[in-house]
Parts: sequence; C-alpha cells; structure tokens
Amino acid sequence: MSRIVPVVLCGGSGTRLWPRSRKTKPKPFLPLVGDETMFEATLSRCNDPQRFASPVIVTGTAHIEHVEAQAKDAGASVIVEPQAKNTAAAIALAAHRLAPDAIMLVCPSDHHIADVPAFRAAAAAAAKLAADDWLVAFGIVPTAPETGYGYLKQGEPLGEGRRIERFVEKPDLQRAQQFLTSGEYSWNGGIFAFRAGFFLEELAKHRPALAEAVAAAVAGGEEDGARFHPDAAAFAAIEGESVDYAVMEETDRAAMVPAAMGWSDIGSWAALRDAAGADGAGNSVRGNAELVDCSGVFVDTDGPRVSAIGLSDIAIVVDGDEVLVTTMDGAQKVGKLGGATNQ
Amino acid sequence: MSRIVPVVLCGGSGTRLWPRSRKTKPKPFLPLVGDETMFEATLSRCNDPQRFASPVIVTGTAHIEHVEAQAKDAGASVIVEPQAKNTAAAIALAAHRLAPDAIMLVCPSDHHIADVPAFRAAAAAAAKLAADDWLVAFGIVPTAPETGYGYLKQGEPLGEGRRIERFVEKPDLQRAQQFLTSGEYSWNGGIFAFRAGFFLEELAKHRPALAEAVAAAVAGGEEDGARFHPDAAAFAAIEGESVDYAVMEETDRAAMVPAAMGWSDIGSWAALRDAAGADGAGNSVRGNAELVDCSGVFVDTDGPRVSAIGLSDIAIVVDGDEVLVTTMDGAQKVGKLGGATNQ
Repeated sequence: MSRIVPVVLCGGSGTRLWPRSRKTKPKPFLPLVGDETMFEATLSRCNDPQRFASPVIVTGTAHIEHVEAQAKDAGASVIVEPQAKNTAAAIALAAHRLAPDAIMLVCPSDHHIADVPAFRAAAAAAAKLAADDWLVAFGIVPTAPETGYGYLKQGEPLGEGRRIERFVEKPDLQRAQQFLTSGEYSWNGGIFAFRAGFFLEELAKHRPALAEAVAAAVAGGEEDGARFHPDAAAFAAIEGESVDYAVMEETDRAAMVPAAMGWSDIGSWAALRDAAGADGAGNSVRGNAELVDCSGVFVDTDGPRVSAIGLSDIAIVVDGDEVLVTTMDGAQKVGKLGGATNQ
Repeated sequence: MSRIVPVVLCGGSGTRLWPRSRKTKPKPFLPLVGDETMFEATLSRCNDPQRFASPVIVTGTAHIEHVEAQAKDAGASVIVEPQAKNTAAAIALAAHRLAPDAIMLVCPSDHHIADVPAFRAAAAAAAKLAADDWLVAFGIVPTAPETGYGYLKQGEPLGEGRRIERFVEKPDLQRAQQFLTSGEYSWNGGIFAFRAGFFLEELAKHRPALAEAVAAAVAGGEEDGARFHPDAAAFAAIEGESVDYAVMEETDRAAMVPAAMGWSDIGSWAALRDAAGADGAGNSVRGNAELVDCSGVFVDTDGPRVSAIGLSDIAIVVDGDEVLVTTMDGAQKVGKLGGATNQ
C-alpha cells in the first residue's frame, strides 16, 4: 500500500486560551504542551517516511508565516486559502491536489495526542479502510461525559474498525453519561482518512455546488514555489460547511477506527492543565511560579513570577501585558471582556 | 492650650501586602488608598497650624530617604533610630526632644483614616486629657469582631473620654463578638496623646532600664540638620517593647477617647479593598483591569492589564515582576513562599 499523505488543517483561531492564544498567534503555533508547538507535533507524528508521504498543509494568509517557519524541514506543500471556508472546502482543496488514489489523513493541528504509536496504528487501520472507499473517522475512545464534542455511534464491524451508525452533536450531560457507560460511542476527533478521489466523488454527490466551486478555485489557482493559491473569486463563492455535515453525515460509506491515544483538543485551561501533566495536588505550572495550598490550579507565565495561595481550580495566565485569572469554567466568558480578545 | 506635636512613627515593614509592599518600600510610603501615600496622609491629617506644631518623625536608616522625600514640605524634624526597638523607645526618643509640657500625638504612619475632622476632634479631646497627665489612647469604635487587634475596656467617664479599665490582646472570635455587642470595648489603634514629661516619668517608673538607655542615647546623640541621630551603642542596649506593654498596661493613668473616624490598619487585601471603596459587587480595582462575574475581588496592577472571570474574594496584585493571586485569608501565608518576601 502506498504511503499516507498527511493533510494538516491550520485554520480557525479560538479565544478560549486567550491571552496565551491570540489572533496573531493562535493555538496551533504555541508550545502549549511540551517544547513543540501543536502544529510541529502534528507534523512530527507523521514524520515517518516508511508510512507517511510529505504533508499537505491547508492554511490561511494570516498564518502562512507561522506555518512556513515551523514546517521548515517537513518538505510540505502549502495550500493558502484566500479565506476560511470551514473543513469541507479545505479538505477538498487538498484532495484536488493529490492523485485520486492517494490516501489522505486529515489532521487538525491544534490537538494534543500523547500516544504517538497508537495514533500511527489507528492511521494504518484507517488507511486500509479508506483504500476500500470508506470515509473513515478516528473514533476517540471517550474518557469523560464531555458535552462539547460530537459523538459517533459504532455500527457493525468492518476490518479493524466499524461502520458509523449515527452522528450525535453535543449531547446533554445525561446523554453523554449514557454514551460513556454504553461503550458504543466515540468522540469525533476531526481526524479522517479518505481516498482523495472517492472523497471528491462523495462531496460532488452530496454538496455539488461546493464541489464545483472548489474545483473552479483549484483550476484557476496559481503555483508559487511550495505554495498553491486557489482562485480567490471562485473560493469566495463557497458556502463554508464542516466535513461532518457536508459529507460524513450524508454518505453511506462512513466508518470509524477506534483510537485510544491520549487525545485532547486542549479546548480549555483545564484540558491544558491535564495534558501538560499535573502534580499530586492537580496543579500544573509552566514558567516561574510558586503555589501554596492550591489544588487544580494551572499557571502559565512568560516572565513575571506568579505566586498563588489558597486557590482551587483557577487558571492564571501571564502573557506580555495581559494577566488572566479565571475559574476553569469562566474562560468560556473571555469574550465578555471588552476588546480583550481582539488582540 | 499649646499646639499638639505630631509624633509620626515610621518603622516596621510587614509582609501582608507583599508584593505591593516590599522591604525596600514598605506600606507607609505607598499610595495604597487614593493618591497620597499613607505616610503623606498621616502628615496631612496634622497639617493645620492652628492646632498642630511641626511634626517629629521617628524612623530608621532604611526608610530615611522615603521619609525625607515625602515629608519635604512639613518642616519636620527627624529622629533616625540606629535600629528598630519597638514603640516604647521610639516614643521616648521623641519625648526627650520636646519640652516637658509639650503635648505629643503619637501616630502610626501605616493606617488609613477616612474621616479627618473626626480624627482632629479626637486629637483635641485627647490633648486635653494628656495636659492633665493622663496617658491617652484613641479608642477606635469597633465595626467588626476583629481577632487581630488589641481591645480597650472603657472605665469611668473622664472629660470627653474614659479611663481604661483593662487591656485585652487579640481575643478569640467569640469574645470579640461579645466585645462588639457590649459597646464597652474599643480597638487600640496605636494612636496616643501624652504630655512628654509625664510620659518619660511613667516610663522611668515602670521600665527604668529602658528609660535610662533612651536618655543615654539622646545625651550621646548628634544633630545633623533636621536629623537627630541617637547614640548607636546606647540605643543597642535597649530591650525593645511596645508602648502598650511597657507603659499603658502598667500605668494607673491610662485613659481613652472614643474615635469613630473610618480607621483601618490596612492589614490585609480585604481591608485595602474596603478602604479603597468597592463597587456594588464588592470589587475594588486599581490600575488597568476588567472583571466579569466577580465579587469581593481586589485588583491592583502597576502595568499589565488584569482580566478576572468568575472569582470571589480573591486578591490579584501585579507589581513589577511579581504577580500574586490569593484568597483574602491566604495572604497571611505569603511567608510560605520561598524567598518571595525577601525582596
């Protein structure tokens, strides 16, 4: 079997990790867990010439400098989206730039995966199913009743995976708890394996306008060294939609492979705290900090010393001229800070 | 009656307001409440030539620069203690430098007093009793069952004040509550009016060794412009003791005047929050800060913007390269931070 082509998506921004994450330097390009940035770690996971080909990176003009600076040794080709149009279009762009029989592995660049061998094993299993024209999602084995994720209900066995019987978006806590207990559901981690040609066929079948617009943008695009610029006018016509809605929930060829690989989308300070490794009291510190009588506290400071006393489940983040102190849940309200997240 | 001589004590340091307060710049010399420092405010309260003479300031070598910079227009004479020997010796030094009939008003320089007219009225009442050879404490009308203060039990009426029947140091909460309810107790705010000569007589009676050592230090001291330097060797022999223990609790001439003047010793972040004036949610902010869903939060930042979300009764202080985040009670444990408070 041919090598898998990593397709790394670098879009979006997200304000949940402000002020560490900023519009000008979003989550993928920050060394949040360990010394590598999450984007670098995404490339490293696929840095195995026996299994993986050179990556295709889909990103926007806002992030191109970070991408090229951090991907410098990966031999990547880079597709520069004129604007963000969600994941269906981004993946379709990459599929157009590959041979129809290429197996593409779609990887978000802002997730943390602790167990790289488990990731690679799941990628190999997914690639096998993709070669047989299944559209394959990684089904993350859930570890908590998360209400913020999409869930996949496992169907009948299929190779090393299963068919997907049903997609469920963001259940309430009670259902999430049932899903967790049942063992029949997985989190949809946004990692997919497709045969490029088959993905484009299914996209054309279920979202013909989107498929045509992407095809036109590619036909009118321009090469510029390792960069490819789709035609901006054609791309602007696209109605942005996630690959989940546009294709995965529509196709009758949806499959999943189970993946227990220490996955986290680092969607909150609590998630970062846990991914970064907490001490016996549940505290996690990055930078110069000292904690007294604290539990479940996350501190990340880029300079000043942080002293914390008597706190529970609080995040303290010092980034340049910004200091954020929030409850773990409170970080969802960062948007209520006037203008803070515009920086 | 002659004018009252303010005797302003500038000693001690205290770590409870670290990192705003440092060894090199302690509490009295910081603009914690309003734009004046607490030392400046102490001088301002007595800046009324009809009632008050020029002040005598007793301080240490460590603080002399702050004192002279901030007292520049007060026409003060400054006694520079070779080392800190607690309040009995400091007050005795000042008494020796005054005429025996001078009425001295001893004022700590790290307290906040919101109601200056009430302070001046109490000073006038105390001065009258002091002229009749009473040793007069300000009895702060208590507003809460504080367990960290000394209490005065009021005795029989005496002019505009009362005799002091008894001193009680730091009661437990139950007793403090009884004291508050009874109406018979006041806080000992460390503000005193004495006739200089009578104070020295009582000191000699109850602490003869201390009185002799101070007299020797003054006899061997040296003038240097507005500064007076007591003899260091003689002063070193002094056993430091508070004026409360050495004189007030020993004398049978202890009196008090009631003072309801918005007093606070700013002994905690909560006290500073309340003295600085809190908003409807009990939050108080100094510097660039924004609060969402917070109550009882105190923020003081000298530069970086602080964003706080979802917090209750937390103090956040940014001072240079130090960031402190603590529960209001937790600040008492600032000494547990390794080395933090040595700066």
